[in-house]
Amino acid sequence: MNDVVELACELISRPSVTPEDAGCQRLLAKRLQAAGFACEHLRLGEVDNLWATYGSGAPVLVLLGHTDVVPSGPLEAWTSDPFRPEVRDGVLYGRGAADMKGSVAAFVVAAEQFVAAHPDHPGTLAVLLTSDEEGDAIDGVRHVAQIFRERGQRIDWCITGEPSSTAKLGDLLRVGRRGSLSAKLRVKGVQGHVAYPEKARNPIHLAAPALAELAARHWDDGYESFPPTSLQISNITAGTGAGNVIPGELQVMFNLRYNPHWDAARLEAEITALLDRHALDFELHWHRSGEPFYTPEGRLRSVAREVLAGFAGVPPQESTGGGTSDARFIAPLGAQCIEVGPVNASIHQVDENVRVDELRALPDLYRQLIGKLLA
Amino acid sequence: MNDVVELACELISRPSVTPEDAGCQRLLAKRLQAAGFACEHLRLGEVDNLWATYGSGAPVLVLLGHTDVVPSGPLEAWTSDPFRPEVRDGVLYGRGAADMKGSVAAFVVAAEQFVAAHPDHPGTLAVLLTSDEEGDAIDGVRHVAQIFRERGQRIDWCITGEPSSTAKLGDLLRVGRRGSLSAKLRVKGVQGHVAYPEKARNPIHLAAPALAELAARHWDDGYESFPPTSLQISNITAGTGAGNVIPGELQVMFNLRYNPHWDAARLEAEITALLDRHALDFELHWHRSGEPFYTPEGRLRSVAREVLAGFAGVPPQESTGGGTSDARFIAPLGAQCIEVGPVNASIHQVDENVRVDELRALPDLYRQLIGKLLA
Repeated sequence: MNDVVELACELISRPSVTPEDAGCQRLLAKRLQAAGFACEHLRLGEVDNLWATYGSGAPVLVLLGHTDVVPSGPLEAWTSDPFRPEVRDGVLYGRGAADMKGSVAAFVVAAEQFVAAHPDHPGTLAVLLTSDEEGDAIDGVRHVAQIFRERGQRIDWCITGEPSSTAKLGDLLRVGRRGSLSAKLRVKGVQGHVAYPEKARNPIHLAAPALAELAARHWDDGYESFPPTSLQISNITAGTGAGNVIPGELQVMFNLRYNPHWDAARLEAEITALLDRHALDFELHWHRSGEPFYTPEGRLRSVAREVLAGFAGVPPQESTGGGTSDARFIAPLGAQCIEVGPVNASIHQVDENVRVDELRALPDLYRQLIGKLLA
Repeated sequence: MNDVVELACELISRPSVTPEDAGCQRLLAKRLQAAGFACEHLRLGEVDNLWATYGSGAPVLVLLGHTDVVPSGPLEAWTSDPFRPEVRDGVLYGRGAADMKGSVAAFVVAAEQFVAAHPDHPGTLAVLLTSDEEGDAIDGVRHVAQIFRERGQRIDWCITGEPSSTAKLGDLLRVGRRGSLSAKLRVKGVQGHVAYPEKARNPIHLAAPALAELAARHWDDGYESFPPTSLQISNITAGTGAGNVIPGELQVMFNLRYNPHWDAARLEAEITALLDRHALDFELHWHRSGEPFYTPEGRLRSVAREVLAGFAGVPPQESTGGGTSDARFIAPLGAQCIEVGPVNASIHQVDENVRVDELRALPDLYRQLIGKLLA
């Protein structure tokens, strides 16, 4: 029996900073093929994607993960080399230990164990991996999902291995994510000298009431377990640096995290109308960075609740908080999606780590989920 | 008799970019001494100042000017070298031709003519020149005025030679200037991720209603011939450039141009109270760049109105518009101040110029003003 810790260490020692895969997927495909999986490598642009399946037909359960990691940051800030995994005091350190090479190793070990015990299980067990989750996420799962749509690939359930736990393995079950919508706003005025304001149009003055209204706007009170929709202005800039010049233009960036009360098109229309009411001369460019997804009560959630309670000792918090993940691309295919993974306290930080006992428990957790859905 | 055009050309050919005087004041002092003036050179920091007086006691009439000029900007944009004066089609071109080497040359020629004709005139005729009007204006007239205050130097009337005319010599009499007050505002928040707004405090959102109120504030309806007081936000900046980070701080610069309804201390108190009402965590640094000055109806204005009407053909517009000038430092000594000079259409631009016929008329204009006040 291959140890999940050994496999996680093999992955961590490959410096697969986005979009590099650094051989992780070849290693994993070799193991999955040996276990009977059919493996398809989808090289899209600079990105490696792996689609491995066992069995056929419905229902289709996908284990979704990524082999890429965020950069290590300054090496000297780390206690040990981020790409040389090291166990100290029962904790495994290394870039990707928690996000999410530990989960990916556990997926593979769990899949091996499950198909060995249930070689003729109904439906399809699949593993989908990308090397572009932490980056632009264009040629990763977004692109693969588009290929699946063209192929008519059905997916019933998707378990993403993102580190979802907060204090203890299994204490949180992510059942949705808010959508993310970004905008760049340019408000035009007329440059001039502060001594002659009547000859200029100050875009800061023109935009200030609209920005105050945007910032004060109450969007909703939340949606089931989703937090309320929120708009945040992240950047604002105008001015030449000189104190006596009225600027000719104001630039603003803002982002919305929204729950299923809204969709991107309605938010865009609402905000454009608000700016129009303020009679601004403006340009607005939208970037839809992710629609929300939400898995309502049903078989996947009830199975996951039961399994996670067995690990955490109490039923998990069922949450829709946090940023975005690749589940946003799979959910629109009609799949129910959840996210279950290790404790996320150290992700994207120096000395990223996962507890060895929790990492050892992870294949068992995933195997129980697979078993309840496909056995 | 030395021609005013020749003297203006001698000054223009000295490249006296602030704070350089480039020998202008030595040249002028030599002529004034020959005419009987007592000359005092006040070298303050990097700045040259000249104080030349003829006669003694009250009333004291000061002709106020500067020998420094703003930089030429790109030489290739000029039709002729900015520091090689050239007459084309009855127009004299060169940096400083209008602002204000033409006026300074005219002051000296007028002073020479006046003391030659009235060697025993009552009171004091003085010429005050600086080489730091276009720059920081710290060691120029501001500093000289401080020395005058310590000495108890009385000044009754001050005629500044700033280019005040708009279309024709004498069409505008400046009888005051607004005050200028600048501020740098720092609004503090708490940085965070846009996905977790409850853990952050967005300084843009916190400040937006206060900025909207500042921008909308009606300060007054003007004061006699002064335009209304105006606040303009010139610069605003917040954000890391990343679209997913709530910034920790917002920086704003604004400037007020204010009429005698207000003084700097009351404006500062009013705006601080406004920011306090919005419960902002802020730092505010003020820079008082010039109190307003205003010369009400009286002997100086009536004399100037009469003289200017003789040149322009109609009574001058009596104005308090525009930016700041060194008169702001002389007025607080108790002096009545006006500004009278050539057409300002080309100042601070490439191909700065003055019409030769108007330059030739300027000594006569100043001589008439001096004569009516001191003869």
